[in-house]
Amino acid sequence: MKRRVGILTGGGDAPGLNAVIRAFVKYGIRRFGWEIVGVEDSFNGLLDAPRRLQLMTLRSCQGLLHRGGTVLGTTNRGDPFDFPGPNGTRSDRSGDVAQAVADEGLSGLVCIGGDGTQAISLRLMEECGVPVVGVPKTIDNDLSATDATFGFHSAVEVATDALDRLHTTAESHERVMFLEVMGRDAGHIALSAGLAGGADVILLPEIPWDPDRVAEKVRARQRIGRLFSIVVVAEGALPMGADVGSPSERKARLKRGGGAAQIAMATLEGRVDAEMRSTVLGHLQRGGSPIAFDRILATRFGVAAADLVAANRWGEMVRVWNDEVDGVPIRDAIRTYRLVDIDGQLVRAARATGIELGSA
Amino acid sequence: MKRRVGILTGGGDAPGLNAVIRAFVKYGIRRFGWEIVGVEDSFNGLLDAPRRLQLMTLRSCQGLLHRGGTVLGTTNRGDPFDFPGPNGTRSDRSGDVAQAVADEGLSGLVCIGGDGTQAISLRLMEECGVPVVGVPKTIDNDLSATDATFGFHSAVEVATDALDRLHTTAESHERVMFLEVMGRDAGHIALSAGLAGGADVILLPEIPWDPDRVAEKVRARQRIGRLFSIVVVAEGALPMGADVGSPSERKARLKRGGGAAQIAMATLEGRVDAEMRSTVLGHLQRGGSPIAFDRILATRFGVAAADLVAANRWGEMVRVWNDEVDGVPIRDAIRTYRLVDIDGQLVRAARATGIELGSA
Amino acid sequence: MKRRVGILTGGGDAPGLNAVIRAFVKYGIRRFGWEIVGVEDSFNGLLDAPRRLQLMTLRSCQGLLHRGGTVLGTTNRGDPFDFPGPNGTRSDRSGDVAQAVADEGLSGLVCIGGDGTQAISLRLMEECGVPVVGVPKTIDNDLSATDATFGFHSAVEVATDALDRLHTTAESHERVMFLEVMGRDAGHIALSAGLAGGADVILLPEIPWDPDRVAEKVRARQRIGRLFSIVVVAEGALPMGADVGSPSERKARLKRGGGAAQIAMATLEGRVDAEMRSTVLGHLQRGGSPIAFDRILATRFGVAAADLVAANRWGEMVRVWNDEVDGVPIRDAIRTYRLVDIDGQLVRAARATGIELGSA
Amino acid sequence: MKRRVGILTGGGDAPGLNAVIRAFVKYGIRRFGWEIVGVEDSFNGLLDAPRRLQLMTLRSCQGLLHRGGTVLGTTNRGDPFDFPGPNGTRSDRSGDVAQAVADEGLSGLVCIGGDGTQAISLRLMEECGVPVVGVPKTIDNDLSATDATFGFHSAVEVATDALDRLHTTAESHERVMFLEVMGRDAGHIALSAGLAGGADVILLPEIPWDPDRVAEKVRARQRIGRLFSIVVVAEGALPMGADVGSPSERKARLKRGGGAAQIAMATLEGRVDAEMRSTVLGHLQRGGSPIAFDRILATRFGVAAADLVAANRWGEMVRVWNDEVDGVPIRDAIRTYRLVDIDGQLVRAARATGIELGSA
Repeated sequence: MKRRVGILTGGGDAPGLNAVIRAFVKYGIRRFGWEIVGVEDSFNGLLDAPRRLQLMTLRSCQGLLHRGGTVLGTTNRGDPFDFPGPNGTRSDRSGDVAQAVADEGLSGLVCIGGDGTQAISLRLMEECGVPVVGVPKTIDNDLSATDATFGFHSAVEVATDALDRLHTTAESHERVMFLEVMGRDAGHIALSAGLAGGADVILLPEIPWDPDRVAEKVRARQRIGRLFSIVVVAEGALPMGADVGSPSERKARLKRGGGAAQIAMATLEGRVDAEMRSTVLGHLQRGGSPIAFDRILATRFGVAAADLVAANRWGEMVRVWNDEVDGVPIRDAIRTYRLVDIDGQLVRAARATGIELGSA
Repeated sequence: MKRRVGILTGGGDAPGLNAVIRAFVKYGIRRFGWEIVGVEDSFNGLLDAPRRLQLMTLRSCQGLLHRGGTVLGTTNRGDPFDFPGPNGTRSDRSGDVAQAVADEGLSGLVCIGGDGTQAISLRLMEECGVPVVGVPKTIDNDLSATDATFGFHSAVEVATDALDRLHTTAESHERVMFLEVMGRDAGHIALSAGLAGGADVILLPEIPWDPDRVAEKVRARQRIGRLFSIVVVAEGALPMGADVGSPSERKARLKRGGGAAQIAMATLEGRVDAEMRSTVLGHLQRGGSPIAFDRILATRFGVAAADLVAANRWGEMVRVWNDEVDGVPIRDAIRTYRLVDIDGQLVRAARATGIELGSA
Repeated sequence: MKRRVGILTGGGDAPGLNAVIRAFVKYGIRRFGWEIVGVEDSFNGLLDAPRRLQLMTLRSCQGLLHRGGTVLGTTNRGDPFDFPGPNGTRSDRSGDVAQAVADEGLSGLVCIGGDGTQAISLRLMEECGVPVVGVPKTIDNDLSATDATFGFHSAVEVATDALDRLHTTAESHERVMFLEVMGRDAGHIALSAGLAGGADVILLPEIPWDPDRVAEKVRARQRIGRLFSIVVVAEGALPMGADVGSPSERKARLKRGGGAAQIAMATLEGRVDAEMRSTVLGHLQRGGSPIAFDRILATRFGVAAADLVAANRWGEMVRVWNDEVDGVPIRDAIRTYRLVDIDGQLVRAARATGIELGSA
Repeated sequence: MKRRVGILTGGGDAPGLNAVIRAFVKYGIRRFGWEIVGVEDSFNGLLDAPRRLQLMTLRSCQGLLHRGGTVLGTTNRGDPFDFPGPNGTRSDRSGDVAQAVADEGLSGLVCIGGDGTQAISLRLMEECGVPVVGVPKTIDNDLSATDATFGFHSAVEVATDALDRLHTTAESHERVMFLEVMGRDAGHIALSAGLAGGADVILLPEIPWDPDRVAEKVRARQRIGRLFSIVVVAEGALPMGADVGSPSERKARLKRGGGAAQIAMATLEGRVDAEMRSTVLGHLQRGGSPIAFDRILATRFGVAAADLVAANRWGEMVRVWNDEVDGVPIRDAIRTYRLVDIDGQLVRAARATGIELGSA
């Protein structure tokens, strides 16, 4: 009988998810002869098995490589260990997930997802005996266990393209233009896009920014006849001494989007004499076709995940390290974040080319 | 002595402004041997003449064809007939403009701009004797005197690309995604982008929309398993019976951006059971390189403007009509807007392909 | 019983074919309640009915709007009136086509295709009694019965983007760069892309070009320090007095691609002192996602085709005329080509901005 | 007196050259207070000094970041050590270069270029005492002294986009489509683009390919109903046992372009039953705006080059190694090529996802 393996995607989508699925399915079927079961909407699909499972075939891989989003869906109704029921009740449904895996005869699950998804999959393995292999996904590129994650470079490209567009219109109008990009805790997208898009100011979550420095940068440009400025703001960036609010207030503000740009505009109001406008990229950064870099990395991740499954290296997560893709224990990989290194070369390059970061 | 002609750009920028300038300068110099003077920042540059005038050469045209924005700038400090002075005073500076035209020996001015710019240029001609030729510019494509204006198709392309991106991420997350696009009074961009980007709902300024119809569309999709919906909202679109607010409130809301999407989300909240997110394209629609269509139209407008100047057909504005570019009296062209024809073929095509417009 | 209607695509593919299919299917099902049958690979699918017919559903329309190519395929094994059989024999299979239409209970066929496809469909109607409705498709935009066809603007965009790329590299290297684009008899793509991409020379099938004029243009640029030149060549463009060769030689040369650019390079060799390089865009012009303009036009064509079917206006072809889409007898529409008007405004605009067309 | 430093670009252009120049100039002026002199057209500009030198200012950096090509030009009339003179004579002009450097008071030269440029600059330093700092440039990414070079990822993106386009049209027409991409000795672009673009076959210079394996791949696809195939061919890829020709014949063939695709088509003719078409990307891969990745790497290289100059670390070349940019002796860096590792992970990923490489 054919080995059966499940695959699912969890958390926010990132360009390249479908490329991981495609590579895993093609390689799993052609090389190992597996039957591969796509689980819809993260672990939720297992709670509705078999209705929300789909058999993945070579045919279902056609056209997936360049397609954004995830064909498996990723709408999470909740953590199976603390699952929402009727009337606000919550219950532990992890046993149902494990039972569905057993009922479906799955050898294990390949879980493509961020930190939350990986943590759940690790618990499923350790507490419920569900064999899992992880594939990391964070569009923010903030996981220290891997040198890179797919989706990040595509998001940077979208943000850079937006900066190119804003440049022409800002220049015509002598305005200060704010572009808010993703990055709640880590400012990698803001830093990379700001460098690539020629921003004048980059505001990062890692650096509480000094309004006077930023205002002075805008004025210094005005003094030499550059009457517009472009400011990239990570969604988690705040001025020095700002009141973050309670965790739930912060979360609500981040979910709504646009908050960081609004705070930046309000803070600079009065300090600089220029019209200001903001654009919030939001979900445009997640959508669309992945760039080549991400398609290749995602393909390598999908192949490596199949190799881990074939070798029964359950409990490991694929990652890329010194340009080689290998496996690392999920336990060691989760909850280890990588923030922007504020003494690193990228930050130095930003300062060297005259970009103001809001601090000395 | 060479004939000298001035050229300026006014109002919001639109992709293609530089292509008009380039064509006018190349043709004016090569064919007619003129000396062409670029006036910076609309009529304002004439108030600071000769400091803010620049001699346009064949060399200054290099690389202009595909460049967004306008090299002449378009920051308007005010209508010369009602110009802001110190301490909130206002004065009529139109005489200074006319004097600068005379002092510089300009035969006339080519004014590329929207309705406001054309109205001022007409007054300058009629009241102050400044010969003018107009080139229409409205990214909203809402001028009835011309079949088309440059910039519109580029803006539609940007909005359509955004819809393509939102589709993949919306599909992965089962969300209602709102995309707010330009269009304060006329919804041409929303309608075209919505058709091209496969929107499920398009909300136009021309059609006060019925929240129940829109909610039903989202629910009908959910019933057949399409758990996401894409809503394109023109910035001037409002639900039936909404309080528009005073003209100044409306203007402030439109200037801030995002208001139409927020109102739409708030209105649907409670009517549909789905997460909702909004993206506001804002200035991304104005920026960047024009698409081929707009570069060609802008080039034709620039050539036609030079022909009008050469024929001393002052007081006329170029336009395209039945695919021929010609001149029409500015007086007849301004203040004649074209809204979306709600019984027209585009609206019919939208309904025919299942797009909900919020009205029967 | 539901009415059944067939739809097929024939000839070379063009961006927008899927958008026509999608609009026809969505409107046909939702508004008229038809059962719609997709015929694979032009009329050939009917010779292999029912194996090569597919039922089109709302679900099969998902994702079609922005997808290049045609999901129905367009590989033509031959004209059904002169169909290739074994051992080089040919036979009239039109009766089999008509029989298949009858056997499948199709009320008629919607045939999306070029001149050849429309001519065959007209014969099928007149000689075999198969009701047909036509939708024109010519990426070259050379059909005089319609103001525009979908796909053309997308092809122009691809060619313009290629010109933008060539500019930067040509400028760095002081080369004469040739870009061969589609256009065997009509040079619309070359003319539009050349205008939009800032070509220095455009060579059209409509204008046998004078090598001395072209060489002088390159040299004149060199004299003023512009050491590179960009030449757009339509695949059917030839220098004055060139030997076209026999019709079959010409056809073979055009099929192979690159011939027009090679001839141009060989002709200029010795006349100008510069390195020369050529790029042949070929099928890149047909592929990829249609731009918004083409998606909208294709959608309108699909809707209009359904309206013609619903009104039993068989024998008509949809077209756009003065911005309105309507129907016109196929008989009147075919074999009426539109070449570039060499005295028209686009050619004038090209000359006015200094583009050499190889003739006075 | 201000320190004066020269900067030049040599060899074929690559996206990102201008970003290196910009970063070097901005940092050099703002941080170190240098006067920076741009040398036109590689070392040639020094032979025509001071006419072909341009003072680089902060203003000359405006808009450079995203601009393709190089504003300094790179047309090489010849190696200064073996410079072509009248009547086919050749002479050593290296002394003139050194004299010009001295006359202009340049502390040294920053030479951005490939292997040839770096070798010349090293000789200039060692034999003529001209202080140099190198910045590597190879769009083929085939230099082993650095983990990455700018331009490569942009070229891969262009080629991947072309593959996306070819897919839709190939699928519609049941054809074998060949795409020839850059890569004379190293197939990195072909491999990466083929992986990212979902090629069916990738032919590399590193692997003499077996026509029977390639033909069988096409036929195997046909047997399962996939009637088209996409073949990516590096320009240096040849079938097993092919006659490469003399070095000068090979060079001429490579310069002309399209040879590898033609040989591939001719070789498969008769082995597979399908129409075949080829597209040669050529200079489109070099042109256009660099993607964000390349803009950032180029910016880091420009900053690092200035740091090397400031530290008088003449004779070194910047490179990136384990994600850190540093300097390495030019002597150690040149003539050390990196070919595709045919046992490496990228090749494995290609095979794992079913891509045929023409060898076991």
